[in-house]
Amino acid sequence: MKIRRSGRLVDMTNYLLQHPNQLLPLTIFSERYDSAKSSISEDLAIVKQTFEQQGIGTLLTVPGAAGGVKYIPGVSSEEATLTINDLCHLIAKPDRLLPGGYLYMTDILGHPQLVNQVGRLFAAVYGDRPIDVVMTVATKGIPLAYAVASYLNVPVVIVRRDSKVTEGSTVSINYVSGSSKRIQTMVLSKRSLDEGANVLIIDDFMKAGGTINGMISMLEEFKANVAGIGVLVESEGLEERLVDEYISLVKLTEVDVKAKKIEVNIGNYFNFLK
Amino acid sequence: MKIRRSGRLVDMTNYLLQHPNQLLPLTIFSERYDSAKSSISEDLAIVKQTFEQQGIGTLLTVPGAAGGVKYIPGVSSEEATLTINDLCHLIAKPDRLLPGGYLYMTDILGHPQLVNQVGRLFAAVYGDRPIDVVMTVATKGIPLAYAVASYLNVPVVIVRRDSKVTEGSTVSINYVSGSSKRIQTMVLSKRSLDEGANVLIIDDFMKAGGTINGMISMLEEFKANVAGIGVLVESEGLEERLVDEYISLVKLTEVDVKAKKIEVNIGNYFNFLK
Repeated sequence: MKIRRSGRLVDMTNYLLQHPNQLLPLTIFSERYDSAKSSISEDLAIVKQTFEQQGIGTLLTVPGAAGGVKYIPGVSSEEATLTINDLCHLIAKPDRLLPGGYLYMTDILGHPQLVNQVGRLFAAVYGDRPIDVVMTVATKGIPLAYAVASYLNVPVVIVRRDSKVTEGSTVSINYVSGSSKRIQTMVLSKRSLDEGANVLIIDDFMKAGGTINGMISMLEEFKANVAGIGVLVESEGLEERLVDEYISLVKLTEVDVKAKKIEVNIGNYFNFLK
Repeated sequence: MKIRRSGRLVDMTNYLLQHPNQLLPLTIFSERYDSAKSSISEDLAIVKQTFEQQGIGTLLTVPGAAGGVKYIPGVSSEEATLTINDLCHLIAKPDRLLPGGYLYMTDILGHPQLVNQVGRLFAAVYGDRPIDVVMTVATKGIPLAYAVASYLNVPVVIVRRDSKVTEGSTVSINYVSGSSKRIQTMVLSKRSLDEGANVLIIDDFMKAGGTINGMISMLEEFKANVAGIGVLVESEGLEERLVDEYISLVKLTEVDVKAKKIEVNIGNYFNFLK
């Protein structure tokens, strides 16, 4: 069906946003709109310019017969700052404090738009690394992992605390929780990860890093590689951190249960955003 | 910053897609593009026409000072058919059969684009009902629940099998699993649901419906209402189903472990798609 430029731009924008990090041959669009490739190229130039100008990301054009166009999600540093400031503001509310110095974050993690935005922020920094899969541990990290994976266009694998019959055969490891020093177990379905896969680890919270370290051990079992580690919130002020290289959006600098006070800062995210 | 129509259409499409089911005053756009409201109205007419033509959804315009425009996600019946046929094809693969007649679906649920597409299908049928929150039970239903909630622009609450310290105080109920007749427990954080909330229940799999029935009991504890029930896969051929009204995308009509055969059909989805 023949569609005019204005309509093409609307539909093309939607199509590209639905297919991030995927090389789309131009014929998809020329057939979809019954238009010449030259018109499609002009359309894409407009989309690219607007995406870059508005901090939506960019379009990568690959020339040649096997070429096409690829939407790379991005974020402007202004928008990233706004989002992270929002998060800091939300997390600093004193009524989040639970007995034992834990933080209630379920409401924040329950908001799809906020979670998607966090996903976009991580995708913007990890987008140029080779990543085959996003891994997280049940339950809280799951929405964040899907949000990141959605923008990177890769599958998600979920490590569990217990094995379930619907997972088929599993690999199980023991690890030491960093803060409580207790021995814990995590399991992963054997079918879910290929040897040599490049894995981005995503989680909601990192204290000493025991859980993330557990996931790294799990990757060793599968002979897979750590491609990166992203956490929404890191907790500062620990004697020893088990994990070295990670990206955090928010940093807890102080949690004082008695005084009902939470001190929050921006994490190390902006050291990595281009 | 002044932006031309072509650029406005691209950015506006992105903005609307990022803010589904949300009334956006036209001033958002007139300020964003430094353009007259009459030009913005013309832009929106183009977007609306394309969205409807391409099965992306529609735009609802609310006139007056408190008015604006709202993007309502939708899906064409052709696209819904393609997606559901894809799902049927994927699910019918005999190597999904696990001991006990269970199905391995982790890989399907691990694909963000497929999961998002399922979310759009559910949002297209539930979009015109008053829904305040999407509820699911950990772990497999979580990505689907977020995908639906993302399109409906409402929060997600996750019922758990066990209580965790980071949830704060919880409400716990016992329920009878429909197929195994075992007594099980589910818990939900007290803070997570308001009285009178309209709740859409989403899950990946429904056999007799025991788990979903448990969630309905949980909603009664919170004096909240069931606004709808959506499942990815329902399993047919049970003597008694505990749940009456639900929407399913895929129906398992036969699972023969010995013969390694899975028979799959389209669920009741198309009875509900307008």
